[in-house]
Amino acid sequence: MPNKWYDKNGEQGDVVISSRIRLARNLNGYPFPHLMSLQQKNELANKVKDALDNSNSYIASTFKFINMAQLSATEANSLVERHLVSPAFAGDRSGRYLLLTEDESISIMLNEEDHIRIQVLSDGLSLKQAYDVADKIDTLLDNALGFAFHEKLGYLTQCPTNLGTGLRASVMLHLPALQSGGVINRLEDNLSKIGLTLRGTFGEGTDAQVGMYQLSNQVTLGLSEETAIENLQSVTMQIIGNERDARNEICKRLDTQDYIMRCLGKLKYALLMSTKEAQSLLSAVRLGVAQGIVNGISLDTLNSLLVELQPNTLTLNEGKELSPQDRDKLRAELIKEQLK
Amino acid sequence: MPNKWYDKNGEQGDVVISSRIRLARNLNGYPFPHLMSLQQKNELANKVKDALDNSNSYIASTFKFINMAQLSATEANSLVERHLVSPAFAGDRSGRYLLLTEDESISIMLNEEDHIRIQVLSDGLSLKQAYDVADKIDTLLDNALGFAFHEKLGYLTQCPTNLGTGLRASVMLHLPALQSGGVINRLEDNLSKIGLTLRGTFGEGTDAQVGMYQLSNQVTLGLSEETAIENLQSVTMQIIGNERDARNEICKRLDTQDYIMRCLGKLKYALLMSTKEAQSLLSAVRLGVAQGIVNGISLDTLNSLLVELQPNTLTLNEGKELSPQDRDKLRAELIKEQLK
Repeated sequence: MPNKWYDKNGEQGDVVISSRIRLARNLNGYPFPHLMSLQQKNELANKVKDALDNSNSYIASTFKFINMAQLSATEANSLVERHLVSPAFAGDRSGRYLLLTEDESISIMLNEEDHIRIQVLSDGLSLKQAYDVADKIDTLLDNALGFAFHEKLGYLTQCPTNLGTGLRASVMLHLPALQSGGVINRLEDNLSKIGLTLRGTFGEGTDAQVGMYQLSNQVTLGLSEETAIENLQSVTMQIIGNERDARNEICKRLDTQDYIMRCLGKLKYALLMSTKEAQSLLSAVRLGVAQGIVNGISLDTLNSLLVELQPNTLTLNEGKELSPQDRDKLRAELIKEQLK
Repeated sequence: MPNKWYDKNGEQGDVVISSRIRLARNLNGYPFPHLMSLQQKNELANKVKDALDNSNSYIASTFKFINMAQLSATEANSLVERHLVSPAFAGDRSGRYLLLTEDESISIMLNEEDHIRIQVLSDGLSLKQAYDVADKIDTLLDNALGFAFHEKLGYLTQCPTNLGTGLRASVMLHLPALQSGGVINRLEDNLSKIGLTLRGTFGEGTDAQVGMYQLSNQVTLGLSEETAIENLQSVTMQIIGNERDARNEICKRLDTQDYIMRCLGKLKYALLMSTKEAQSLLSAVRLGVAQGIVNGISLDTLNSLLVELQPNTLTLNEGKELSPQDRDKLRAELIKEQLK
């Protein structure tokens, strides 16, 4: 596999896995996607593609143009696993297109809920850098196509919750210590009062054992992109501090160290491994690496593994259909090889 | 630690951990121990010791003479863990003595339920060899002291279940596959019909997960020592065959192999390990070694570990009192070191 943005660990990488900027945009002269004909969708997608192709920008030249309708379910679901498209976008693929750079850091969904969704992913805490990239693409497409914009409301979007900046900024946080301390629920409540949402990811909320959470802004109306990102950044820095304190506390205990080492033992010796178990074990080992309990394994390796061991991505990399047991076997082998 | 009989793996050692012969004997001229005064007990013990000392036999010269009353609880309980004395003998130590060879293969309890209990332990399936040794000690002491013997009843013993030969022959069997197949209960019933008893050991019956069982003869009256031992030997050979078939069957399965390797992973990585968990994990790894699933670890090592990781024996080898958590930590270290 070529290098991906998630193969390396970034700023504050012990706690922050990645940063994400998403901009929702729509063109004048077309209804929102749920009211468009297939012909209109194809026409719009080609316009966006042409705008990129004709822009003479280096970034624009690096995109692959993917007709979602031509992907297999495995290919489409792997895009969801890599956080490149939404589940809805992968589910109903007719008339939908994806523009994607090779390192997968920039993806543009066409004809999702809005005409255009620009997304930039980057490692560690790097919201401003990610926003700068998204802003460049945004400016380039706006100049070429003209986005629907209202003087008072800002960018017009299909769903009113995106009206205004159309910006969703988020960070993926690894919070195993705050999770095990049981303070996440209180944190969620407090954050929602200041316009931020914290929710469990890798299995959407319920799969709490993995300790991965997405923190994102909710307010898009009435404050600038810069302010929204600064708010998110400063709250993230506070949560990082809390998580580190909680880690130091629990990792002093021998039973925590024992638990972490046992998780590593299972990863190194198991012959069969489900996605869910692997994520939970890797989360514990990630904590161990960050705290110096586990040596000789890098956070980079763990970040890549967390993406690549997912069922569709695993199958896609293997290049052939696999039974669930074959996948569990292959996953165990992949992990053993990577952790050697 | 000097070499012990249990440090090596013997005949049919994949299934048979050890063989044991025990002879119950009493002297004329004394009541049974529960009716003896302390003075009588001491007198009797010294007589036995003198008989050995004066015998000019090499075996006899190798015994240590241990006054149980002078042992700490840890020392006495470690003798129980090593199967050298009964729990009752270790519990009430006044007036009780133990004669023990350095390799711990021969132990003679004085003033337990009977005046004299000769026990020979040896590795693998070796009932006849063990009996030959016990028989030599028996003859030597009988010649010197004269055992209580009745023409029709044979050797007289305190409990009528030992009358006759006074022989209890047993083998310690590792039956993880028959256990996991759930056929042990049926086997126990069938064996009891032919005068043999099968019962779980390492935690007496309830602790079924370890898969260790003791098979012993029950009948001491009306059949010779040779016949009793031959019966036990031939039934043991049948059970060995059944266990090996069951092992081949379950070890074909990837989930069994996965379970075994995970047990090894836990043993190699845990920082804290209870006796019970260690026994259960080592049992699985022992199966893996016997079936060629686990490489680079010998059955000898596992046999020694199963004895040495027990709480009192562990404490004794460390040479100082340990808290339960210290023991669990030391046990985990011992295991990691031995399995390296």
